Amino acid sequence: MPVLLAKESDVDVLVIGAGPAGLMAASSLAKAGVNVRIIDQRPNKVAAGQADGLQPRTLEVFQSYGLLHHFEEQGNQLHMVAFYNPSSKGGVERTGRVQAINASTARYPFEITLHQGAIEAIFLDFLASFGVQVERPVIPTSMQLSADEKELKDPQSHPVKITLQNLDAKAGQPDTEIVHAKYVIGADGAHSWVRKALGISMEGEQSDYIWGVLDMVPETDFPDIRNKSAIHSNNGSCMVIPREGDKIRLYIQLTDTDAVNPLTGRVDKEKMSAEKLLQVAKKSFYPYTIQPKEVEWWTIYGIGQRVASKFSANERVFIAGDACHTHSPKGGQGMNASMIDTHNLTWKIAHVLRGWANMSLLKTYEYERRKYAQDLIYFDKTFSALFSEKPASEENQGGVTHEQFLEAFLSFGLFTSGIGIHYAPSAIVNTKHQSHASNLIIGQRILPSVFIRAADARPFEIQDLIPSDARFKVLVFAGDITEVSQMRRLRVLGEKLGKPEHFYNKFGGKEPSAAFDLITISSSKKEQVDATDFPEVFRPHLNNILLDDEDMHARVAKGTGYDTYGIDRARGAVVVVRPDGYVGMVAPFEDVADIDQYFSSFMTV
Amino acid sequence: MPVLLAKESDVDVLVIGAGPAGLMAASSLAKAGVNVRIIDQRPNKVAAGQADGLQPRTLEVFQSYGLLHHFEEQGNQLHMVAFYNPSSKGGVERTGRVQAINASTARYPFEITLHQGAIEAIFLDFLASFGVQVERPVIPTSMQLSADEKELKDPQSHPVKITLQNLDAKAGQPDTEIVHAKYVIGADGAHSWVRKALGISMEGEQSDYIWGVLDMVPETDFPDIRNKSAIHSNNGSCMVIPREGDKIRLYIQLTDTDAVNPLTGRVDKEKMSAEKLLQVAKKSFYPYTIQPKEVEWWTIYGIGQRVASKFSANERVFIAGDACHTHSPKGGQGMNASMIDTHNLTWKIAHVLRGWANMSLLKTYEYERRKYAQDLIYFDKTFSALFSEKPASEENQGGVTHEQFLEAFLSFGLFTSGIGIHYAPSAIVNTKHQSHASNLIIGQRILPSVFIRAADARPFEIQDLIPSDARFKVLVFAGDITEVSQMRRLRVLGEKLGKPEHFYNKFGGKEPSAAFDLITISSSKKEQVDATDFPEVFRPHLNNILLDDEDMHARVAKGTGYDTYGIDRARGAVVVVRPDGYVGMVAPFEDVADIDQYFSSFMTV
Repeated sequence: MPVLLAKESDVDVLVIGAGPAGLMAASSLAKAGVNVRIIDQRPNKVAAGQADGLQPRTLEVFQSYGLLHHFEEQGNQLHMVAFYNPSSKGGVERTGRVQAINASTARYPFEITLHQGAIEAIFLDFLASFGVQVERPVIPTSMQLSADEKELKDPQSHPVKITLQNLDAKAGQPDTEIVHAKYVIGADGAHSWVRKALGISMEGEQSDYIWGVLDMVPETDFPDIRNKSAIHSNNGSCMVIPREGDKIRLYIQLTDTDAVNPLTGRVDKEKMSAEKLLQVAKKSFYPYTIQPKEVEWWTIYGIGQRVASKFSANERVFIAGDACHTHSPKGGQGMNASMIDTHNLTWKIAHVLRGWANMSLLKTYEYERRKYAQDLIYFDKTFSALFSEKPASEENQGGVTHEQFLEAFLSFGLFTSGIGIHYAPSAIVNTKHQSHASNLIIGQRILPSVFIRAADARPFEIQDLIPSDARFKVLVFAGDITEVSQMRRLRVLGEKLGKPEHFYNKFGGKEPSAAFDLITISSSKKEQVDATDFPEVFRPHLNNILLDDEDMHARVAKGTGYDTYGIDRARGAVVVVRPDGYVGMVAPFEDVADIDQYFSSFMTV
Repeated sequence: MPVLLAKESDVDVLVIGAGPAGLMAASSLAKAGVNVRIIDQRPNKVAAGQADGLQPRTLEVFQSYGLLHHFEEQGNQLHMVAFYNPSSKGGVERTGRVQAINASTARYPFEITLHQGAIEAIFLDFLASFGVQVERPVIPTSMQLSADEKELKDPQSHPVKITLQNLDAKAGQPDTEIVHAKYVIGADGAHSWVRKALGISMEGEQSDYIWGVLDMVPETDFPDIRNKSAIHSNNGSCMVIPREGDKIRLYIQLTDTDAVNPLTGRVDKEKMSAEKLLQVAKKSFYPYTIQPKEVEWWTIYGIGQRVASKFSANERVFIAGDACHTHSPKGGQGMNASMIDTHNLTWKIAHVLRGWANMSLLKTYEYERRKYAQDLIYFDKTFSALFSEKPASEENQGGVTHEQFLEAFLSFGLFTSGIGIHYAPSAIVNTKHQSHASNLIIGQRILPSVFIRAADARPFEIQDLIPSDARFKVLVFAGDITEVSQMRRLRVLGEKLGKPEHFYNKFGGKEPSAAFDLITISSSKKEQVDATDFPEVFRPHLNNILLDDEDMHARVAKGTGYDTYGIDRARGAVVVVRPDGYVGMVAPFEDVADIDQYFSSFMTV
């Protein structure tokens, strides 16, 4: 037999793992035109089960990639949450209903539920539109990161050598490939091979909680079967998550006796069955009855609450998603945290690969996302404890009351929706001039607001004008240009933007529009100004001029954007939005030097 | 050479012509599961030019087929109209701006513009999803309609014999096919072969107006280049229609000298060119300048304002679209009228083919759409005259003033948007109980209104719950079911619906849900009632129960639907909506006999 030589190849970014974190990584990079490959050990995509809850901020991010409509078409929406607690008549009774999303600025005030296979399929199609396919079943078998300082410091070098094995290679074809990558993203799940290869430890511990998951189409008289329902009964807790079609997911609290193998002390799926899970659930539902028409999937698990000690090796190999953080699935957070991890990372890699940014920019990934992961574990510990503990009752006065649980649910609303995510000051989060846009919190995602286009009075949600296209958005809130003095200030700003010593013509390639999208929003009214009144530098296209005014029917644009953002209607301000949609900095017109400094702290000339 | 025998075949519906009217016909029939074929004489779809304006009601209809998002993605939106009139300084000046759509209940308060080729492509894809392809280039060469009364009266007979010729038949293949059709729709344009074959005359006359059309990407300082602009100058009139991308269309008024061949007395394209059209336009734009970066398409035409004397032969061969009505394109009506023609016709054919309805139902097509076509000509005559006449000025005191033109524009707003279309009383429009839903005008399309789903508080626009699926929608406005007496009334209604002698279980096949979609909307609040509280007959699916209540964030559902519709919040009413989205009848709970009578007037048992 001839010896088959392993193929050798170069790639800019290799993504390992095609779950939500990996698919978001590869999609986002492919959209940015980055040379990317993605591998996965599974021979096929997920068919059922796994994660399924998409939070409001994740929906905003999907929209920024132009993908939300697929999720809206296929997914179920959760608008209402119901709480059930022990009734004096035995069994449970409804103690309250509130909105599922407690985050008043959420553009989409609901959660979408859809099984992970469908979610992945949407991203696989999106990836395919850029000519990228997931290579599977393929696993990494070895990885070496160069120790050569010079090589590591050169953003265009290929310091990571990975051996890949194709588990389904055709006879006579080599099953091994050696890939030299500039950057690697390990999105390979809770048991991450990449994490282990890097020797990164997980910090935290296994909790005492054991839960079962059961996906099914139910037959029931439970009145909240289509709402997210938290059932706290004297016979254990249960959470109902309605899904697409008539499916639901049940999270069912289990005891050690139910689920732990006494010999090993570990959770043992052999001890359980869909039928047994259902019997436990039925006790929580009493006096309501529930019966599956069809069981789709089930599993059981113990909850580990851990965060990786590091999220990267030398900013060359990164880990993301479950590889960095594991926790309870009941809060509907896992898939969201995973996808936002890589959404945070990819534009940074793209900017470095384009030669626009220093590699130091990549350090902000761990800085921002590890802090978030720690907050996530804190939430999960608090919420899991409340949900797993016995409910308050006459016999158990110290138990969790409806009011305690409700208060926790509501107070975590901003965090769990993803809307509250707040990145701390860093090279890319500069809070110096916060007061010039007092409600647009620097480090948080830009608030939704509808403006009208000056040229045709068409209303646009600002989030739709700043898509995830790997560009910084420079929003010039021009103030009221019908005032001569303000028009003068705007002209001076425009002249600065036109000069090569200032950021707009200094960083990010020869054409400003490559790295920056300049959008100008005036507080003047459509009756007073035309798009053509604005200095030319502010209209790379006529459509880039907006007004904070009502649309022609005052239906969607209210003319209140400046107030929503806390920006002075007369004098305006400049707002820099990062490519991932988070506010990076704010400055008054006169402080262009501060914007220059912001960009020069991580961008190259 | 062997003699090639013509193929012979049967089809339920043959559509002749794959322009907007034909594509809507075939799409709608294919979606309803009807056996349909569609032919067109053009070897390819339209690449440029032709019609491009989509009015608000047309957008609602597109949404009812699930297609609107394609148009939103690709098309331009017109929200604002600008008016220009002679300035005292010479040239023109802006005299006003108003909303493009003056129809307060329009769900989409804008017009979408997109070139006809893109519009057709969306329908071709939709058709393909049902396995139907346009056969082209294929023309009909002869058509015979049986004179046999018995055959004509049998809805399942094939009384139309049409010979088709394939203009691009492969060598050795027959180029001729004889098709026996149950029904034929001639959507073959202003010079309709089908109309001529039937000997149907066009009534009306040629106007004196001659117009040029020029599609281009302009370079201009005209401040309203992205708004629909009506320029009334002393040097002629011009209309600006912004299109997708940066394109615009200009409608340019011409004189006989510009455009008529003195020998023939007819409009002669040879006399004109894009350059000459532009020169005429430039005079209207002065003092603004306009120059094409790129000319896409141009043509000239004289306006004929005519309506066909009949819209069908024996309700077996129908004509639709430009084959029935020709008029000026400036009002942006043609394509809309054409598509709504066949949208009106197809569900009727589907019901007859399914054996649910009598052939008499088909008579309502001409009754409803010919009246509409006549109104359209009236609008066109009035509007064309105003637009073509000289503007008022010091020298021309009797000319058209800005105020006159604006008033006409606004007062025709309800009609031109398509929102005001009102079908007169007939077998399918029964106004007897109008007072029970005083604002829901019987014969008009159902008003948009957002309700919430009882089971999960998710808001839904009612129009999205009653798609164009060839079913009648029975909307039971259940009133306030927390009142014992009202719940009793509802139960009585439910019992009637369950009985075989009443319409719901009497007409349209064995399963009520085949022909009827039953949706129940209560005025009770989500805090008071659960979906499971409603009698079972009202919930073929749990999702069929709605509430007129606010959504969880009071953002889109306001709980004002009953008031919008003029329905008593306590006692409710039953509203029957036709498959094309028009209100067919209203009845109080106690008058189910009237609903029975409504359906029995055109449905079979």
